[in-house]
Amino acid sequence: MSWFRSLIHVSAARASSSSSSAKSRITDPFSYSLLSCFTTEARPPALYSGLGATKPGEKPRVVVLGTGWAGCRLMKGLDTKLYDVVCVSPRNHMVFTPLLASTCVGTLEFRSVAEPIGRIQPAISREPGSYFFLSNCIGLDTDKHLVQCETVTDGADNLEPWKFEIAYDKLVIALGAQPTTFGIRGVEEHAIFLREVYHAQEIRRKLLLNLMLSDVPGVSQEEKSRLLHCVVVGGGPTGVEFSGELSDFIQKDVHQRYAHVKDYIHVTLIEASEILSSFDDRLRRYATKQLTKSGVRLVRGIVKDVKDKTIVLNDGTEVPYGLLVWSTGVGPSSFVNSVQLPKAPGGRIGVDEWLRVPSVQDVFSIGDCSGFLESTGKPVLPALAQVAEREGKYLANLLNTIGEAGGGHANSAKEYVYKEPFVYKHLGSMATVGRYKALVDLRQSKEAKGLSLAGFVSWFIWRSAYLTRVISWRNRFYVAINWLTTLVFGRDISRI
Amino acid sequence: MSWFRSLIHVSAARASSSSSSAKSRITDPFSYSLLSCFTTEARPPALYSGLGATKPGEKPRVVVLGTGWAGCRLMKGLDTKLYDVVCVSPRNHMVFTPLLASTCVGTLEFRSVAEPIGRIQPAISREPGSYFFLSNCIGLDTDKHLVQCETVTDGADNLEPWKFEIAYDKLVIALGAQPTTFGIRGVEEHAIFLREVYHAQEIRRKLLLNLMLSDVPGVSQEEKSRLLHCVVVGGGPTGVEFSGELSDFIQKDVHQRYAHVKDYIHVTLIEASEILSSFDDRLRRYATKQLTKSGVRLVRGIVKDVKDKTIVLNDGTEVPYGLLVWSTGVGPSSFVNSVQLPKAPGGRIGVDEWLRVPSVQDVFSIGDCSGFLESTGKPVLPALAQVAEREGKYLANLLNTIGEAGGGHANSAKEYVYKEPFVYKHLGSMATVGRYKALVDLRQSKEAKGLSLAGFVSWFIWRSAYLTRVISWRNRFYVAINWLTTLVFGRDISRI
Repeated sequence: MSWFRSLIHVSAARASSSSSSAKSRITDPFSYSLLSCFTTEARPPALYSGLGATKPGEKPRVVVLGTGWAGCRLMKGLDTKLYDVVCVSPRNHMVFTPLLASTCVGTLEFRSVAEPIGRIQPAISREPGSYFFLSNCIGLDTDKHLVQCETVTDGADNLEPWKFEIAYDKLVIALGAQPTTFGIRGVEEHAIFLREVYHAQEIRRKLLLNLMLSDVPGVSQEEKSRLLHCVVVGGGPTGVEFSGELSDFIQKDVHQRYAHVKDYIHVTLIEASEILSSFDDRLRRYATKQLTKSGVRLVRGIVKDVKDKTIVLNDGTEVPYGLLVWSTGVGPSSFVNSVQLPKAPGGRIGVDEWLRVPSVQDVFSIGDCSGFLESTGKPVLPALAQVAEREGKYLANLLNTIGEAGGGHANSAKEYVYKEPFVYKHLGSMATVGRYKALVDLRQSKEAKGLSLAGFVSWFIWRSAYLTRVISWRNRFYVAINWLTTLVFGRDISRI
Repeated sequence: MSWFRSLIHVSAARASSSSSSAKSRITDPFSYSLLSCFTTEARPPALYSGLGATKPGEKPRVVVLGTGWAGCRLMKGLDTKLYDVVCVSPRNHMVFTPLLASTCVGTLEFRSVAEPIGRIQPAISREPGSYFFLSNCIGLDTDKHLVQCETVTDGADNLEPWKFEIAYDKLVIALGAQPTTFGIRGVEEHAIFLREVYHAQEIRRKLLLNLMLSDVPGVSQEEKSRLLHCVVVGGGPTGVEFSGELSDFIQKDVHQRYAHVKDYIHVTLIEASEILSSFDDRLRRYATKQLTKSGVRLVRGIVKDVKDKTIVLNDGTEVPYGLLVWSTGVGPSSFVNSVQLPKAPGGRIGVDEWLRVPSVQDVFSIGDCSGFLESTGKPVLPALAQVAEREGKYLANLLNTIGEAGGGHANSAKEYVYKEPFVYKHLGSMATVGRYKALVDLRQSKEAKGLSLAGFVSWFIWRSAYLTRVISWRNRFYVAINWLTTLVFGRDISRI
């Protein structure tokens, strides 16, 4: 009972001495061993101030910027016998984006669609030379093979972010894209995007808050209608799926659990051109019909201005809203804009057929932040999970082959002969529209012929397809369980 | 395709007219019906500004303040054929507090321990006269049978909270207690309590942040030790269970998933007197041994001051910390302090043997905010879930009996003869200490003789007991599933 000995000792010490030598009071060897490390004054200021360049005998280091589809698929595929993997990102998990819309209303739980990096590439948690750093990349020196980073310290008010450098042998830029606002005033302040788990959490909290506030005595009917008017801007797959989920939630859960205000809640989807523009015409018409049937109002319009309680369309109509979700597509992030590398159309980082950034050594770029250079004669691929995932897989294999050929270290792959270039083959698109209905478009491009399905069967295919693609067994299991409990018990409405 | 008609109409209108009559553009009847409600200018300012007194022919109204164990158990038991139920609380769910410590490290998910009020008493979501209001109670007029409330609007920057009144026939004050800080400077700013789901979320986020930050290049060994020093103040069941869960997390998950920093993380439990003071001596010794074995340092001390990175003990020892959890017991909330009602020892609202607040009509108080008046000759019961739950159940039956006897309306129960008083029978205490070990103390009081168990069997009893007491089938199911996946896959470490 070392604790009791220690306590007795402390008590004895307290009784016998003054408080001048307080620091040596707790003399249980175990307690002391720890507390001593706090009280030692003279110590080197830091163990190391970054990760230096690897030496010839050591494993080369692949630095991956970003933890989206591209970066995570790459890390999963990298051979950790050949490389150390260092990942830099402001979030320690990958988001399974196609299912994110379902978490906003509680069909799925947030954790069921988030996969920690350590589960995707276990070496990062265990190997002595592999790391995950919760940081943003703030600079790049391709001559010296260095990236500059800064730690993320949100939630810790007493910490200053600090900067450090990492030397790379291979650098993979997979930083993704950020939502576009087209410079419309007020979008950043008042609308919620739908790209990260915290966006979905914010939407869920706001929706439940508005449902409850609208039921409080003293609220005018006008204010009730405003609070419960959910506006979605952007008719791509995310906007359509979110609208579908929301109308499902209204029909099944709000009608039962917020019976007093159920007649006030409405969903409006605003799109400048046509919804699901990449899908087959027949599917688009089907989606339109299904959404309208579920009570989603489809309005063609362009948003001109966003105020705190209303949006203004370009024809002057002022539409009050309680919840505004913005999903009008993505563009390059400010880091990608600022970085001194060749650019592809649309401001993305330009890559060649092997996903290399030409003109510099050992730098690759994949996912939404990159695109084929005009010189390749290939079109920039769409910003889809599918594209990013395929590029990550391709690049992992390519880097493994280079590593096996002895070209892993910085500047040592100059003689390597690149063979098979990256070729993207579209496997089709899927989207749900709520009410156990989905669209599956298996054509390879908008002009091509091929199978397209709509209805319950596609919904079943959609669910099965995602269930087998949710990466870990843990999350596959939880997604299935969440779907089951939503069916049996309804969605959870605790505002936590 | 009413949408297309509507769009075509809008386009035609846009082409043919100026923007002066913009508001009437969307003329699809369905869209119009909604949008019209926003554009109508003249409308009565509010439908109603509160809930007025019930009339003789109507159902009497029970107003319940609070959604803890006491209030929720009461609402569950109230006969909604006899009464309308109106609940006022800043949270729309009950927290299953004995399992909250498990959610801080991911053994259980947050939603598995939160039960929405609508699932506990469905009438609140459905019946025309029953409501849940997301609000704080700010005042009380027992002469007029009125409570004053103010809405909670956290997360909605563009809303001012508003005030309203509710007339009650019976009022049940079940507002719980709040953590005590003993006036120690810095506790509110730097420590995290463990009473609400958002506390557990904050602890989890901070713990994961510190684990990741301590692995970033440039951090001194001293700072690593500080970041990963988890200090728990208070050795009651909550503090002990949290320490146990944390050491489990360290041994099973941190060692695997944060292998680089695993040797820097430590847990210290600081208690002024002895841990688990209400338990049997043998169990206390067992708990001490188990916690020490799992690496929890038990330190006897009194905290004098809390700074942003260190705490100062009363003997002058300065202990650096990265995470500080405060669970030193509870005291009356500021509303309970301010309310003009008779008080029991400890500042709680004083009640008689039937849980009535004497000197006023139709007011009852249950749970941690209330205690027997000295005049009853009974001791104030401990602030335990068990007590609150039993009081809620008793009062529900009492109110149902009063209602059946025709005394439901305000001031109409004066002739009612109160029979069986509330008698508390302690069923025993339980606590886990991590590593599949728990304590079960089935004695009725500290002095009494009776069964007390420690070890794996008690852990099994502990789990089974909680599993059957987690209120809804949904949450029972999720708690079981969470335990299963923690065992099979480990805890989730996504920082979301």
